Amino acid sequence: MLKINKPTFLIDKAICQGNIQRMAEKAGKHKLRFRPHFKTHQSAAIGEWFREAGVSAITVSSVSMAAYFARHGWDDITIAFPVNILEINHINELAEKITLNLLVENVAALTMLRKNLTHKVGIFIEIDTGYLRSGVEVNRINQVDELLSLMRGSRQLEFRGFLSHTGQTYSARSIEEIMVRHADALMKMRSLKEHYHFNWPNLEISLGDTPACSVSDRFDSVDEIRPGNFVFYDLMQEQLGVCEREDIGAKLVCPVVSRHLSRNEFIIYGGAVHLSKEFIINQFAKRCYGVVGNCNLENGIRAGEETWVSGLSQEHGIIRAGFEDIREFKIGGLTEIIPVHSCLTADLAGYYLTTTGERIEKMQKN
Amino acid sequence: MLKINKPTFLIDKAICQGNIQRMAEKAGKHKLRFRPHFKTHQSAAIGEWFREAGVSAITVSSVSMAAYFARHGWDDITIAFPVNILEINHINELAEKITLNLLVENVAALTMLRKNLTHKVGIFIEIDTGYLRSGVEVNRINQVDELLSLMRGSRQLEFRGFLSHTGQTYSARSIEEIMVRHADALMKMRSLKEHYHFNWPNLEISLGDTPACSVSDRFDSVDEIRPGNFVFYDLMQEQLGVCEREDIGAKLVCPVVSRHLSRNEFIIYGGAVHLSKEFIINQFAKRCYGVVGNCNLENGIRAGEETWVSGLSQEHGIIRAGFEDIREFKIGGLTEIIPVHSCLTADLAGYYLTTTGERIEKMQKN
Repeated sequence: MLKINKPTFLIDKAICQGNIQRMAEKAGKHKLRFRPHFKTHQSAAIGEWFREAGVSAITVSSVSMAAYFARHGWDDITIAFPVNILEINHINELAEKITLNLLVENVAALTMLRKNLTHKVGIFIEIDTGYLRSGVEVNRINQVDELLSLMRGSRQLEFRGFLSHTGQTYSARSIEEIMVRHADALMKMRSLKEHYHFNWPNLEISLGDTPACSVSDRFDSVDEIRPGNFVFYDLMQEQLGVCEREDIGAKLVCPVVSRHLSRNEFIIYGGAVHLSKEFIINQFAKRCYGVVGNCNLENGIRAGEETWVSGLSQEHGIIRAGFEDIREFKIGGLTEIIPVHSCLTADLAGYYLTTTGERIEKMQKN
Repeated sequence: MLKINKPTFLIDKAICQGNIQRMAEKAGKHKLRFRPHFKTHQSAAIGEWFREAGVSAITVSSVSMAAYFARHGWDDITIAFPVNILEINHINELAEKITLNLLVENVAALTMLRKNLTHKVGIFIEIDTGYLRSGVEVNRINQVDELLSLMRGSRQLEFRGFLSHTGQTYSARSIEEIMVRHADALMKMRSLKEHYHFNWPNLEISLGDTPACSVSDRFDSVDEIRPGNFVFYDLMQEQLGVCEREDIGAKLVCPVVSRHLSRNEFIIYGGAVHLSKEFIINQFAKRCYGVVGNCNLENGIRAGEETWVSGLSQEHGIIRAGFEDIREFKIGGLTEIIPVHSCLTADLAGYYLTTTGERIEKMQKN
């Protein structure tokens, strides 16, 4: 049986592989290229689970992450982040070795790329379909035209199509709201495709957020999807209705170090540097930094929905326990914390452990 | 001149050394042992700056961190975290090599230590003076007595005194509120000292949070202070009135990658995995994940108080810029983000860079 003695990011490989398989099948059914976002796990070993499911092209969120996965044999990578022109040398090194796609949404960056690229790259124009983060607003056709004209006649810049991160689905409150926001994004991207199709017959539409890719079966005009979070899922996705509790493939296991029965509180070794300070508002209208699941390890604690992480400092987590669960919390017991946002919790781990005891290495911060 | 091309934790060594020097002098003036908390920086190289200021005893927040600093020559370490009995083997290894102090606040953990320790350790009883996290509530004298009786006659458990983290000063709204909360904690700790002084004449009182240690000059009955955050300070401390902007010794430097003038917003490469999701509520009643300072690097951006980080996703930061600052934000420019909570931002960095170009290694996650 696994021996865990400090905060540990624990992965259920079978659940994660099931999540990968389902998404790969959905992409296949809709004839979409499946280009999963690897920022969630940042691990070459987990990348292999995707390869086994037929994946050969991936998405990452930084040049450093692209370099890491290129070193691990991935040769078709999209950096789905507005190109950081300060990293031009590193981009050139990568573009020499692999098929590299960059994201562009402003003239300054594209002009700089045009002048300084030494190798061919694919270019996606990022479109903002309503998330209000980066990307050209979908109705600014003049701006799109200006970017396209900069690519015409360039030897290194190959226009690939339009890409959007429809992160607005994350603030939906129900499946229906996700569907509406997704349909709106589809409509906007389709109108772009139709508008530019005559001059750029091979242009592609790349979309992909975990909520819509998980629950929708409409992908008209889309050529490629890029979900990432679905490999682990988390509490945020569960609260959205996008996954079930049993689809969540990653937990943080933490020891109990202190009991405070008079206030129904327990302290775990596991804080902001392990879970991240991302929270949801739970059914009691309180900030929730994770809920306590049923830990199957020796000394594992089992808890219900009234037991959650109510506060975090650097290494301490405060558990607010429901009355039924209080007797479970013993010093030296192990809690299983279901993370609010698995991408951020995974990022904080130095490595992962699987429920079968396999240590999984990941990209290190540098 | 420094060349920075991606999110980088930048340290002004002179400011940090000044912060260390001032705190060391205050401790000296009040005849307190200065046992700084190293969880803020987690770096052996920065540890040396403390050694130069005469520090020989330190505080850490985990067994792993104690092991890291022990490897780097520190031989008097207090782990200021309720002892995690699952790490007993690791604790024994450390206790064999160095002077190790542990924190105890419950009978279960102390009983387990009594049975399984193979080497002598110092024991502090953790007291909760009002923070409501870990520690024996100060009025539960029976519980303190029970812990003390378990230490009597033990060869390995050496009672050192009472320790409290008066984190309640962090939620104060003014210097006056910090003073009141600190005075309350002093009174509680003094009454414990007086109560137990006859039987334990050598017992010590250990206190120490950055707010009170920075602003108070009253430390009656205290023998040792353990502030940590003051080495860098941050926006939270500035908002509390504990430090000035020019005392803040660490910033996150981030490139600008996207401009959205129509909504006064800019996107930087620098997100939750660089800054952490800790926020304060700013003067506009908005969530603020950092403010934009005046970056002195080439392409550095200078900004006023109306310009701040208003949102974070994994690698993107959204800057809400004041009207006066808009023209500063150019693609490829560098912003200097003053972190809300420097401990969490530092934890997320793989290494630090000083303003004079020195690369500073730190403890790696494992």
